[in-house]
Amino acid sequence: MVRILGIDPGSRFTGYGLIDCDRGHARYVASGCLQPGGENLPDKLGSIFRELGDLITRYQPQEFAIENVFMHRNADSALKLGQARGAAICAAVMSELPVAEYAPREIKQSVVGKGAADKRQVQHMVRVLLKLSDIPQSDAADALAVALCHSYQQSALRRVSSASGLRGGRLR
Amino acid sequence: MVRILGIDPGSRFTGYGLIDCDRGHARYVASGCLQPGGENLPDKLGSIFRELGDLITRYQPQEFAIENVFMHRNADSALKLGQARGAAICAAVMSELPVAEYAPREIKQSVVGKGAADKRQVQHMVRVLLKLSDIPQSDAADALAVALCHSYQQSALRRVSSASGLRGGRLR
Repeated sequence: MVRILGIDPGSRFTGYGLIDCDRGHARYVASGCLQPGGENLPDKLGSIFRELGDLITRYQPQEFAIENVFMHRNADSALKLGQARGAAICAAVMSELPVAEYAPREIKQSVVGKGAADKRQVQHMVRVLLKLSDIPQSDAADALAVALCHSYQQSALRRVSSASGLRGGRLR
Repeated sequence: MVRILGIDPGSRFTGYGLIDCDRGHARYVASGCLQPGGENLPDKLGSIFRELGDLITRYQPQEFAIENVFMHRNADSALKLGQARGAAICAAVMSELPVAEYAPREIKQSVVGKGAADKRQVQHMVRVLLKLSDIPQSDAADALAVALCHSYQQSALRRVSSASGLRGGRLR
């Protein structure tokens, strides 16, 4: 059984989602949306770093997956997003979690089956795949989707590894 | 006496510069350029976070100043720079250092007297102001310039505060 922490970082909100994966079966553990406190940038980044560290201490995930971003349209928002990503990744590295990154298309493709899926489709499929009674909040759903994408990639890798007689390795 | 750690963050190199400031007089302590180790992004960001944490433990600065960036031309490099800034700011916040941010124009204006100064002018003035025997490496010079800019701003603030009978506060 592997516990995965998925993160959807953002300059205003950071979604998180925890799932347990056992031989291809995913089970929901927890999810939510961090709204970094503080008035200025250092307070906000410190808040992301601390709150993710607290989540890691509380839930003890073994792996960490985060949404990657390419070709952002706006340089100013790319800088802000980068800062939030930097804080989140540092929290994972300081807890000695292996970090995997997935592009938005890759995540949607593996969860919805369509790289160009919209947010509502992602929310719907996350609800179905994790057998949730309610539709999860958008940032939490995106974070759960990253965690699910990572679990599928790791399962596929393990199948390939065992088929070729290799010991299980990491994608990244 | 106040010890200031100035940082010039970058996706490839992170310059640092430490100065001691006593009633408007600045003295050079140390400077250099961190070249984050590791092959992937998490290793690089973890390396920035750890190495800055080590510098803070070793030199015990009381204040932290970092170059701010606005209107970056390229979104991809803005994201990378943001990630490095996020890691550096987290290192400062986790060491409970107050963080001040300065725009490049503000730094050049206060060190060279010209907001549009080029890198060589900054290196030259940093050498003159800190009475260095050699021209510092470019990223280290930029970091020392941020630290100098912060010391000038804080001195000005203290003068204003004492003139108006207020207790010394922080700019940010």
